[in-house]
Amino acid sequence: MTKKILLIAYCELLISVSAFAQPLVNSDQTVTFTLPDSGYRHVALKGSIDKDYKMTLSGGIWSVTTSPQQPEMYTYYFKADGKRLLDPSNPQKVRDVSKIFNYFIIDKGIAHDYTTHDVLHGRLDTIWYPSTLNGMSQRRMIVYVPAAYDTSPNARYPVLYLLHGSGGDETSWCDDGRAMQIFDNLIAEGRVCPIVVVMPNGNVNLDAAPGESPYMNKAASANNTGSWFGKFEKSFVPEILNYVESHYRIISDKEHRAIAGLSMGGFHSMYISMNNPDLFDYVGLFSPMSTNGMDDNRIGKLRKFSHNVQRLKVIGNMIGDNVPENTALEDKIQNIDVYEHLNDKLKQQFQNPPKLYYISIGNKDFLLHFAKKYMTNMDSLGCKYEYHLTDGAHSWENWRKYLVEFLGKIFR
Amino acid sequence: MTKKILLIAYCELLISVSAFAQPLVNSDQTVTFTLPDSGYRHVALKGSIDKDYKMTLSGGIWSVTTSPQQPEMYTYYFKADGKRLLDPSNPQKVRDVSKIFNYFIIDKGIAHDYTTHDVLHGRLDTIWYPSTLNGMSQRRMIVYVPAAYDTSPNARYPVLYLLHGSGGDETSWCDDGRAMQIFDNLIAEGRVCPIVVVMPNGNVNLDAAPGESPYMNKAASANNTGSWFGKFEKSFVPEILNYVESHYRIISDKEHRAIAGLSMGGFHSMYISMNNPDLFDYVGLFSPMSTNGMDDNRIGKLRKFSHNVQRLKVIGNMIGDNVPENTALEDKIQNIDVYEHLNDKLKQQFQNPPKLYYISIGNKDFLLHFAKKYMTNMDSLGCKYEYHLTDGAHSWENWRKYLVEFLGKIFR
Repeated sequence: MTKKILLIAYCELLISVSAFAQPLVNSDQTVTFTLPDSGYRHVALKGSIDKDYKMTLSGGIWSVTTSPQQPEMYTYYFKADGKRLLDPSNPQKVRDVSKIFNYFIIDKGIAHDYTTHDVLHGRLDTIWYPSTLNGMSQRRMIVYVPAAYDTSPNARYPVLYLLHGSGGDETSWCDDGRAMQIFDNLIAEGRVCPIVVVMPNGNVNLDAAPGESPYMNKAASANNTGSWFGKFEKSFVPEILNYVESHYRIISDKEHRAIAGLSMGGFHSMYISMNNPDLFDYVGLFSPMSTNGMDDNRIGKLRKFSHNVQRLKVIGNMIGDNVPENTALEDKIQNIDVYEHLNDKLKQQFQNPPKLYYISIGNKDFLLHFAKKYMTNMDSLGCKYEYHLTDGAHSWENWRKYLVEFLGKIFR
Repeated sequence: MTKKILLIAYCELLISVSAFAQPLVNSDQTVTFTLPDSGYRHVALKGSIDKDYKMTLSGGIWSVTTSPQQPEMYTYYFKADGKRLLDPSNPQKVRDVSKIFNYFIIDKGIAHDYTTHDVLHGRLDTIWYPSTLNGMSQRRMIVYVPAAYDTSPNARYPVLYLLHGSGGDETSWCDDGRAMQIFDNLIAEGRVCPIVVVMPNGNVNLDAAPGESPYMNKAASANNTGSWFGKFEKSFVPEILNYVESHYRIISDKEHRAIAGLSMGGFHSMYISMNNPDLFDYVGLFSPMSTNGMDDNRIGKLRKFSHNVQRLKVIGNMIGDNVPENTALEDKIQNIDVYEHLNDKLKQQFQNPPKLYYISIGNKDFLLHFAKKYMTNMDSLGCKYEYHLTDGAHSWENWRKYLVEFLGKIFR
């Protein structure tokens, strides 16, 4: 066998498809993106990187190298002649609400916590728990169980209930939030003690992420208007907390329970903890939607309004007019007492105050005004909280950071 | 409050974002797809539906209604002026190898098994097990645990090891294969007994799905050339089977163990069962890659070739020539004895034959020729198997069906 033939055969054997190595993070933290041409006239790179970039065509390949990027998990896509394209060379994809993005991580600094490392990994349980919230008898949630759990079969653990936002579901914290990696890494480094983390689905109109629920196929809507009317908050203790604390080895006391959430999940955390003042010693509100106009005055109007709709329906039926069914409205407002008497509830919650009531929000967040109003009210009631105003807007970049920071402060 | 104002407010309250109800399966099983215009000249609908469809523009919306479609899980995308677009109105998406597709299910007939129903659901555990296969010390796998498992804390269960194909990973069977739904539905209907199902990652070059492994970020390739050289098969019993059978309540005998896989996973199942003739009473090969030229003659050549590369490297170093490192090759061929003496191994496996040796493949599958060759050899050895030649090619449509059929035949 000649040397040449040998080498050809050898290279064939070792062939290494490097097509999936996209994008390329260079040593100076600039990042190179490429896209094979397909007759495009203009291609741009867009996403959570520092800015949009025009790409240039050479030798059948569109490419661009960005400015140096800070360590972070970045989402991106290509815009070719006005159309949104995914990167065919990068199998790393994540869904945020209903859009898919490619992503990459610059594995340094804060983003080191978002990357899988060779540490002991916990287990993620995807389970269904009994629920009467929706048409089906069960809802889906994801539970993180720390590595120590199985090796210490008699130990009990603190628990964090971690809630998603309005466009999300039970998978969001692990997918967009890199929560699994964050738990593994922080526990391995002793930055938080081993904990169980419960990530339920807080969208009352669905029972599971898209594709996992039968409702999507039945042309049900993915709206979550139902999630703002107290139903989820009311179901939380009997359906979620009780299930978790009877199926996992949890230390079932206030000192060992935390609840936190982003945006709508912050709203849910706020009201769940307020309506159950003896349950949580740690409350985390990340860019929370706050009272949302749900003050007692508004609630009174809603109740009156519902009463009027009832009357209207009777009249409508009498005169043969076409009045829509209002069972949905009745159903919605029957739990809004969750939001009533906010000040009394807050005062009660802070009589024996939680060890940490944590609020973080970005200086460009569209909810900043509401958060400030909520805090002004807390101030007037003498309720103590820890407040962090950060850079940035209503984004996963912030929520990942807030989660890491919050984890560093709980169960100490 | 006037009736008009009341109704407007009422509609605001009940607003239901139906944008996510795409596509619309009509009662005659035609399917209507829509896409808002964005200045496109031509838009087509493509995917696993019966054929490609041209879409037409009217009132700013591209749309098409297909012919009636058979009950099935369909993947699709839009092609607008030559660019591949996802459906912005459908959050149901699935990744197959590195491409994302939208999908929908016509929930009748065979596809009823692929849909979430209101039955008792099992639990999906995403776990990491110790492994020396790759640079890290752990690999990721997904384990399905039936609903009965937690309510019968002393019961033990049969186990199915279910392996993915060459472009897949530990998530493929649940995502593309709707395996979770299939297990839940078949167990609920008594069509298979409650079982534990283990879905490991058979891609030796990675340890977890894209984004879950650190290697993707380090520009490692997603190729799986390493998965064809015996390493996975050799690691299977010490690393996977032993881990599972010591961490889950499994009935650890041949009668209660099954192994099955698609394509490369069929190849792996074939050799894992053949090299461990006393372990599995049920073997399922779905569109399997078969001997793949890995006969003893070829293996002899590889060994000789490796020897020559070794010599060449010495010579190359002596003459200062640039010979690539060949540790990868050495590493690869050191486990190829897994494929040696195939006939002897098959004969041994069939001395005390498995209760079911199941082979299914489509009449348009590009691997059909190899499967036939493999079966001809089995015939010549007197090894009995159950063979199903179906319609179709190398596709998830077939693998889902084969899984349902195989489950109906095991642990009876």
